[in-house]
Amino acid sequence: MSLKESLTWRYAVKKYNNQKVSDEAIQTILDAINLSASSTGMQPYRVIVVKDAAIREELAKDSFNAQILEASDLLVFAAFENITQSIIDDYMAHVAAVREMPLEQLSGFKQALETHMLTQTPEVNFSWAARQAYIGLGTGLIAAAELKIDTTPMEGFNHEKLDQLLGLSEKGLKSVVLLSLGYRDAEQDSYANLKKVRLPLEEFAFVH
Amino acid sequence: MSLKESLTWRYAVKKYNNQKVSDEAIQTILDAINLSASSTGMQPYRVIVVKDAAIREELAKDSFNAQILEASDLLVFAAFENITQSIIDDYMAHVAAVREMPLEQLSGFKQALETHMLTQTPEVNFSWAARQAYIGLGTGLIAAAELKIDTTPMEGFNHEKLDQLLGLSEKGLKSVVLLSLGYRDAEQDSYANLKKVRLPLEEFAFVH
Repeated sequence: MSLKESLTWRYAVKKYNNQKVSDEAIQTILDAINLSASSTGMQPYRVIVVKDAAIREELAKDSFNAQILEASDLLVFAAFENITQSIIDDYMAHVAAVREMPLEQLSGFKQALETHMLTQTPEVNFSWAARQAYIGLGTGLIAAAELKIDTTPMEGFNHEKLDQLLGLSEKGLKSVVLLSLGYRDAEQDSYANLKKVRLPLEEFAFVH
Repeated sequence: MSLKESLTWRYAVKKYNNQKVSDEAIQTILDAINLSASSTGMQPYRVIVVKDAAIREELAKDSFNAQILEASDLLVFAAFENITQSIIDDYMAHVAAVREMPLEQLSGFKQALETHMLTQTPEVNFSWAARQAYIGLGTGLIAAAELKIDTTPMEGFNHEKLDQLLGLSEKGLKSVVLLSLGYRDAEQDSYANLKKVRLPLEEFAFVH
């Protein structure tokens, strides 16, 4: 499928069948998300593959999204709740290691990050980190569609509860969005055959 | 190119050559962005293709990103600064028209949107809208890379100035991120041949 075909094929699935997504496909999707662009290259978010069925059950109790429980798999995008000195230090060490360069060569880059991020409030840094996670979400949706795997991005869930269930705050993370993976039940899902609603291109994008 | 190859091929270009991106390619990229997923399907953001060279010059003055001026083309992603009753009404009318259904059939959906969004602060609604724009950004980066068109996503610019230059507040929009399009100057761009830095997959994504 072309990118356009993939984007047209996908929709936010409401009803999944029982078919499981293969581990290999999940790895391909995660790998694509990991390759997504992120501002300054920092990748200030993580993706958690929820294998603990009890957590999915608990989370589904508070949500109108039955897909949390019914889909084959559930990914959680969680963003850094703040950008700290130690996050910047770790990132610089990682860049230096991958590019086989002395840490000193990154001092200008490091200082720019520090000046910018360590003076912002945690809220501003979290908001920035969450946006980067959404770039990854965009990639994940496409990566899944290319494999003909269905998805549902979901923002309607109990964030605080999920953070607790996954122990995210100890990792400096807060959940931002869920992505379920699976295969649509086209007969049971009344949304499966609805016409996709998108703005006319000239209204969505315009020249100035 | 496969998706993985596209994602690996792209990087945030610092130095572009003078080759222009075709109008047809820009339309293909905009069309892909327009097809991106967005929460509730509302597409609470717009993409502006900045053809006015004076605006790009003015914007570049305040930014460390020379790509604003030097790239072939510049896109601005601008999100709704709030979600209002009239936005919801317009959206409902559009859904009803595209799906050829009576407006009344959407009353449950409409009420859910109203209950949720009209009680949130403008800041929370804007933050939500901006995140949706980043899904589109993720799609745009992939759509461009598939056409072997280079890109630079840029957050470092004078948002207020750009909003003024484009008259965005009269449209209820605020700029969130730029995306330049063009072709890399691989010889002049010291970043062109650097190794891509990404986290080991097992650190970026983990099972719980």
